[in-house]
Amino acid sequence: MPPISDRITYRPIYGDCDRMGVLYNANYLRLFEMGRTELLRKSGLSYDEFEKMGFILPVARARIEFKKPVKYDEPVDIITSVKTHDRIKITFDYEIRNSEFLLAAGETVHTTLNRDGKLIEVPEFLVRILEGERFHK
Amino acid sequence: MPPISDRITYRPIYGDCDRMGVLYNANYLRLFEMGRTELLRKSGLSYDEFEKMGFILPVARARIEFKKPVKYDEPVDIITSVKTHDRIKITFDYEIRNSEFLLAAGETVHTTLNRDGKLIEVPEFLVRILEGERFHK
Amino acid sequence: MPPISDRITYRPIYGDCDRMGVLYNANYLRLFEMGRTELLRKSGLSYDEFEKMGFILPVARARIEFKKPVKYDEPVDIITSVKTHDRIKITFDYEIRNSEFLLAAGETVHTTLNRDGKLIEVPEFLVRILEGERFHK
Amino acid sequence: MPPISDRITYRPIYGDCDRMGVLYNANYLRLFEMGRTELLRKSGLSYDEFEKMGFILPVARARIEFKKPVKYDEPVDIITSVKTHDRIKITFDYEIRNSEFLLAAGETVHTTLNRDGKLIEVPEFLVRILEGERFHK
Repeated sequence: MPPISDRITYRPIYGDCDRMGVLYNANYLRLFEMGRTELLRKSGLSYDEFEKMGFILPVARARIEFKKPVKYDEPVDIITSVKTHDRIKITFDYEIRNSEFLLAAGETVHTTLNRDGKLIEVPEFLVRILEGERFHK
Repeated sequence: MPPISDRITYRPIYGDCDRMGVLYNANYLRLFEMGRTELLRKSGLSYDEFEKMGFILPVARARIEFKKPVKYDEPVDIITSVKTHDRIKITFDYEIRNSEFLLAAGETVHTTLNRDGKLIEVPEFLVRILEGERFHK
Repeated sequence: MPPISDRITYRPIYGDCDRMGVLYNANYLRLFEMGRTELLRKSGLSYDEFEKMGFILPVARARIEFKKPVKYDEPVDIITSVKTHDRIKITFDYEIRNSEFLLAAGETVHTTLNRDGKLIEVPEFLVRILEGERFHK
Repeated sequence: MPPISDRITYRPIYGDCDRMGVLYNANYLRLFEMGRTELLRKSGLSYDEFEKMGFILPVARARIEFKKPVKYDEPVDIITSVKTHDRIKITFDYEIRNSEFLLAAGETVHTTLNRDGKLIEVPEFLVRILEGERFHK
């Protein structure tokens, strides 16, 4: 089964851009969050609901390659995929593209913590979501 | 007894500025937060400790006048004062200045909520802090 | 002719929210920017194009009333209107609403600067846009 | 000659933290920017002056390891070093520490662009700064 994937569009605002008129480097991680959140939502379980079930998915590592600037007010696609997952780590993969170019790429690696902040194995229902199954409430 | 007042310095980073090379309008409220937090800390009670005692001071209203731009990497003073306070509201007053000019002015009005999110009267120990008394743990 | 008005939807991300799990106070001004930008775009002239014509519309004053928290991941409507305008000032009015409540309200007052940063009168073509006319390129 | 290094302190504000009460993942890159900017300033040439000379140092790649949370209002040290540099790339290395632990580590790789946005070799005067020489205006 192929990794799940999703595409959303975002248009950087003034407050996202730096004095070069392009997306400030830290804000790429905001775009990655948007992509990851909408990818999860499409499975039928929002990240907000996941947290309310008593779990969190903190970022353990992040990596960004900045290829071309993301310009103020220019809509870009954020393409998010589940790259790999095992018993304790989930890796999401991101591409930011305009109509012509790959502007940036990156990944974030996440672990799962329970309500007490203890590292736990990725819950079985989340593994199924990551493999493309729809979540049933 | 005069209202308490404090002055701190901040130097805007790239990530604070917009494509005009000046502090983005929303980020003035970040500077106001910095000023207010350091004003409270000097009383002997940090805002973090105040929250751990079971209270929060949400912003009910804010107002900003933008007079001259705050430039990238130019240190500015943030001058914070307690303007007024009564049984349910505290008003902080802010000025942002460089060595020559008043660049911005503003105020934030706060109420007090308890652990359950209910509006309560400003606690007596906080009133004393706002009037210039030092907090003793 | 009634003032022009527009409604967009925004869903706060993790990075927008503070440790109370609600939209951080400064970020309301980001939502106001989103509303204002989309209002202008619907007239046929984007703010980006307006700037490329050699004008900017800096914020001279802003005011926010925080009525109820805007929660993480809860979609809210941002309703933006032109409240008043005269030869040198434009006032935009904002409401943030969920399906039940008015969560916040505010306004921003803008002036017009030319390429050299000099205060100028609101350009005639912008006055017509503010009065509801469509911009023709 | 050893790579140059610098240490500054930062205390996360409410607006930096997410609803877990800890520094939001994107904001680590803001702390890296602060560290890098102050490291350059100590050489005698601020990044602002470097840009005014007609150069920019965009981030080409960034990497962050999140080891332990950076808490609201807890001062942390940001330790920035020049890790490597060659004719076209400069790599800065960052550690974020509290009094006990290494909380995060990371690096950013930068290239040099001239006024026209063209990739150029790292200017000779900047190479000397990166090797620990003081800049003389």
